[in-house]
Amino acid sequence: MSGDEEARHKERTQKHKAVVDARIAAATQDKGLLLVLTGNGKGKSSSAFGMVARTLGYGRRAAIFQFIKGKEEVGERAFFAAHPGVTWERCGEGFTWETQDRQGDIATARAGWEKAKAALADPAIHLVVLDELTYLLTYRYLALEEILPPILARPPMQHVVVTGRAADEALIEAADTVSAIRDVKHAFRAGVRAQQGIDL
Amino acid sequence: MSGDEEARHKERTQKHKAVVDARIAAATQDKGLLLVLTGNGKGKSSSAFGMVARTLGYGRRAAIFQFIKGKEEVGERAFFAAHPGVTWERCGEGFTWETQDRQGDIATARAGWEKAKAALADPAIHLVVLDELTYLLTYRYLALEEILPPILARPPMQHVVVTGRAADEALIEAADTVSAIRDVKHAFRAGVRAQQGIDL
Repeated sequence: MSGDEEARHKERTQKHKAVVDARIAAATQDKGLLLVLTGNGKGKSSSAFGMVARTLGYGRRAAIFQFIKGKEEVGERAFFAAHPGVTWERCGEGFTWETQDRQGDIATARAGWEKAKAALADPAIHLVVLDELTYLLTYRYLALEEILPPILARPPMQHVVVTGRAADEALIEAADTVSAIRDVKHAFRAGVRAQQGIDL
Repeated sequence: MSGDEEARHKERTQKHKAVVDARIAAATQDKGLLLVLTGNGKGKSSSAFGMVARTLGYGRRAAIFQFIKGKEEVGERAFFAAHPGVTWERCGEGFTWETQDRQGDIATARAGWEKAKAALADPAIHLVVLDELTYLLTYRYLALEEILPPILARPPMQHVVVTGRAADEALIEAADTVSAIRDVKHAFRAGVRAQQGIDL
């Protein structure tokens, strides 16, 4: 890069920095966030678990509720469940086509949601992960009217992450941050089974 | 639910289970995956950190290279860097508009990439996270010809996760799994600054 190019780079980046700095200066609020991670792509639950790691990094507490999966022993549970800052609740017995017992699935979901409500009322818990919560609504195990009020009434600095495909429009409307994860390509369709450390 | 409805539910779920089971049975291969998490939405790096947690849950090793961010102390680093199964390398001094020193940024990126290449040649490392690698290509700090061959020549069971916006088409082509994370809504735009445990 010539001296001229260096100078132009510096001018450009100074302008860009001014724009970014102004945006950052405008964002001053602290708030417990409701995040929804939806879509069919890989990365919804793993992102929630990354936020659990971040939370623990500040010495804060996280509570994780898994509403569908739960039977199998997986890497994230082996890693986090033993941590003193983590509460881990398996509230599911598998997808409805696995259990083939709708009444049982509803009872399991309802029992899980009662435990989650207790976490959503506890200001000592910095982050509540409601993993695969969206399916409780999709399958009509629970009504939106049971789910949304305890989330909205939570302590003001508590963060909540909801994961799962096809998030209900009312959940998206209520959320502060929403990511829709598009499945551009997935190794599973090329014949690769779930890999330890990546998918489970 | 009536007896009839129960029976229909059971029939439907049995059919669905047969389809899902057949798909799972068809996916038999084990393979070190290249995952690309791109798009402008929240959840790319946090998803990579969730996969680090999963990997550690199986007692395996992970190496993390952060190509842009790195100056600030963040939750994920506080949490993971002390773990004996984790190698954590800060290979960046911030975005180019922060440093305003293109030659310095290129030298930093190149030094970081040399370290990453060593991890990509080490079969004892189960997962390599190349966090915000895409920007090295976007800003032309490094050429695709320097980046792609060491990734493709890695040990066959090693997984690699690349994160960052606007992933290069060649990287997407080479990947096994690609998620494009769409920014539907972000609290930052509503005036909320980066929150501990969620964004850092």
